[in-house]
Amino acid sequence: MPIEKREIIQVWDAVKKVLKYQLKLPLESVTLEESDGRYLGENVLATHDVPPFDRSPYDGFAIRAEDTAGASRDEPVELNVIDSIGAGHVSEKEIKQNEAVRIMTGAAIPKGANAVIMLELVSEKENNIISISRKVEAGDNISVQGEDTPEGTTILKKGTRIHAGVTAVLATFGYHTVKVFKKPVVGILATGTELLDVDEDLVPGKIRNSNAYMIASQIKKMGGEPQILGKLPDDFDETYAGILKAMEKTDLVITTGGVSVGDFDHLPAIYKKMGADLLFNKIAMRPGSVTSAAVFEGKLLFGLSGNPSACFVGCELFVRPYLLGSLNAQKVHLGAVTSILQKDYPKPNPFTRFVRGRVEWNATAAAASPVGLDKSGSVSSLSEANALIVLPGGTRGWEKGSQVMTLLLDGEGSVWPWDQALKSRS
Amino acid sequence: MPIEKREIIQVWDAVKKVLKYQLKLPLESVTLEESDGRYLGENVLATHDVPPFDRSPYDGFAIRAEDTAGASRDEPVELNVIDSIGAGHVSEKEIKQNEAVRIMTGAAIPKGANAVIMLELVSEKENNIISISRKVEAGDNISVQGEDTPEGTTILKKGTRIHAGVTAVLATFGYHTVKVFKKPVVGILATGTELLDVDEDLVPGKIRNSNAYMIASQIKKMGGEPQILGKLPDDFDETYAGILKAMEKTDLVITTGGVSVGDFDHLPAIYKKMGADLLFNKIAMRPGSVTSAAVFEGKLLFGLSGNPSACFVGCELFVRPYLLGSLNAQKVHLGAVTSILQKDYPKPNPFTRFVRGRVEWNATAAAASPVGLDKSGSVSSLSEANALIVLPGGTRGWEKGSQVMTLLLDGEGSVWPWDQALKSRS
Repeated sequence: MPIEKREIIQVWDAVKKVLKYQLKLPLESVTLEESDGRYLGENVLATHDVPPFDRSPYDGFAIRAEDTAGASRDEPVELNVIDSIGAGHVSEKEIKQNEAVRIMTGAAIPKGANAVIMLELVSEKENNIISISRKVEAGDNISVQGEDTPEGTTILKKGTRIHAGVTAVLATFGYHTVKVFKKPVVGILATGTELLDVDEDLVPGKIRNSNAYMIASQIKKMGGEPQILGKLPDDFDETYAGILKAMEKTDLVITTGGVSVGDFDHLPAIYKKMGADLLFNKIAMRPGSVTSAAVFEGKLLFGLSGNPSACFVGCELFVRPYLLGSLNAQKVHLGAVTSILQKDYPKPNPFTRFVRGRVEWNATAAAASPVGLDKSGSVSSLSEANALIVLPGGTRGWEKGSQVMTLLLDGEGSVWPWDQALKSRS
Repeated sequence: MPIEKREIIQVWDAVKKVLKYQLKLPLESVTLEESDGRYLGENVLATHDVPPFDRSPYDGFAIRAEDTAGASRDEPVELNVIDSIGAGHVSEKEIKQNEAVRIMTGAAIPKGANAVIMLELVSEKENNIISISRKVEAGDNISVQGEDTPEGTTILKKGTRIHAGVTAVLATFGYHTVKVFKKPVVGILATGTELLDVDEDLVPGKIRNSNAYMIASQIKKMGGEPQILGKLPDDFDETYAGILKAMEKTDLVITTGGVSVGDFDHLPAIYKKMGADLLFNKIAMRPGSVTSAAVFEGKLLFGLSGNPSACFVGCELFVRPYLLGSLNAQKVHLGAVTSILQKDYPKPNPFTRFVRGRVEWNATAAAASPVGLDKSGSVSSLSEANALIVLPGGTRGWEKGSQVMTLLLDGEGSVWPWDQALKSRS
């Protein structure tokens, strides 16, 4: 059987091709409590000023600053406390000359007052008299209505991922339900007769289908909804039918395995038979050079390598920007940090390598070290890695101490990181 | 009413007090697909060698290395292909002199073979003959049984948080259900008559209860199960009864508001009436100096400030290590990075400040900038922050360009970070 000729492209060029496509996801309403990790489907506006009224940031006394004009330690000023208001209450009294109102944190500033003096700075005497021994300026300790956020301001942008800080903002403005993008449904198909289900006993020549569970976890973390659709045997017709069916009922499909140049790998021919538009089917990267992507009826179909590390890397590099782009996120790529490489890689490699590693921050610099065996088939290192160390290909190897780009597996992601990777090579 | 005297302690000393306590959480079994974000309740062992048999990492031909001893471009060696095996299949044939078996990635190495040559390096001729023009070493391109992980190895430690890489390991070893710690149930009570529910209209003097939703989101991210238990009015008896009831039905309780020295703050007296052991009730930090914690019948009760930023910071600094420690995690604190401060803070502050900020990685250094107004009452900055900039208190302010510790709101956390913070001051 002839070996198909594949055109090889650079990782960043493959990513660019993926970025041209986006799903059109409908919006749905979820309660604030269910909204964690979801992406805002529209801009969110401030429904009122923040603070909504002039209020006190401390426990203390609301006063007229001018009454303290001559106050000093030797000549303290005495004020008459005419009311006491807790947070949530509003004084009906107006402060006049040499009067004060006791006020709690968050309470509205009463009429007539133009400053607050903190409780700790006041001596309380008998008969509702307080003594102040310093000059207070007008406006002191007053949180002015709208100073944080005026009504109508766009406070959160469409595509913002909801986390605790975002939740606080939404609750403050009374959004007890939130319009978010529907989660993209990601079909996951494993190809290969060598695969067993996770609960099956090992038999010679077979391994368990770990990739599907791993990808499902990656997709969930990105904000998608994974559907593990089982395994397909190494049979052309069954694989073809299985992929078509999966494309129909999901927003995008990921296959693992079956994209190598081996005899039992039908995917390239299946793409052709489907009439899918091939974006790429060979990438100058290790692991995962046989990663492919195609467009079928406006949806993307990713063919990730069957080997766990290549599969993991392919999902983060190519599926992530498509999925997050469809959710209108700004930072659709993994977060990127320049780090100091802790190990020599003397052997030149024409392909860009993605080494599973750990970034640790020592003093101000980030240090990047490989974990485990870093064999592409090794699954144990995936559990320890917090980063992918990017070693662009070239005619030289890499020296310990070089500045290299590392992609962080946690955190908020980055906009286009690849220029940084290329700079590390030059 | 007399103002209660409070003993003030340093942040790190307060954290140390919290670290002395841990919940005893029962274990439960969950399916692999439901296990994301959970913490392993026991060490996980390799149930078999990885790889489970000698296998090929590439598509190619299994051969006897010795047959290629004299091979060169000028004098290629020809081998007879006696079988072809796909991944998941096992050849029943044994390779003898000058024989080869065509083999797919992941397939078991057939008997008699001691090396694999990649497909691309072989010329295929007619009549099942292949031609090899280079010497192959014994062991080349063979993934040896157990080389990644031998059977019985502890592959994942108790207290490991389950993420995609961990999932891959669990699936590989056939763990379709996983023993994890039961999620600690965290009761959240907001105190203060100034609070409205999120879906209530604003009225003068009142604000919406945003803290409960924010804390719920923080707790979920940490791996706990939040229960928003509503609001308590500023009334001693109702608050006392509400807290007792909450302690009964949850593993720990967080209150927000009501820990200031104002007249309407009953918490210190409630702790006393409960007979709870006070750990601290005043911390040398801004925001959040009135953060408190107490132990009641072996469970912790945290009194966080009612102001959103102080509440957020208190939850991350004090609740996090208790909750994650109870889940047997190693890195129970926020991740810590030394960063270059991008702004002057000329005013000395006796208290350690926690400035909501953003860390950005420029070249190799991390730059830390404040976001928003950084007023403790400001909620909008919480949605943008990815870090807390730690400015330990002292007699001097902080200069732009100083090295300061920043605590990252995302990522895998750190072990004890506070020595680093103290170093930044000296």
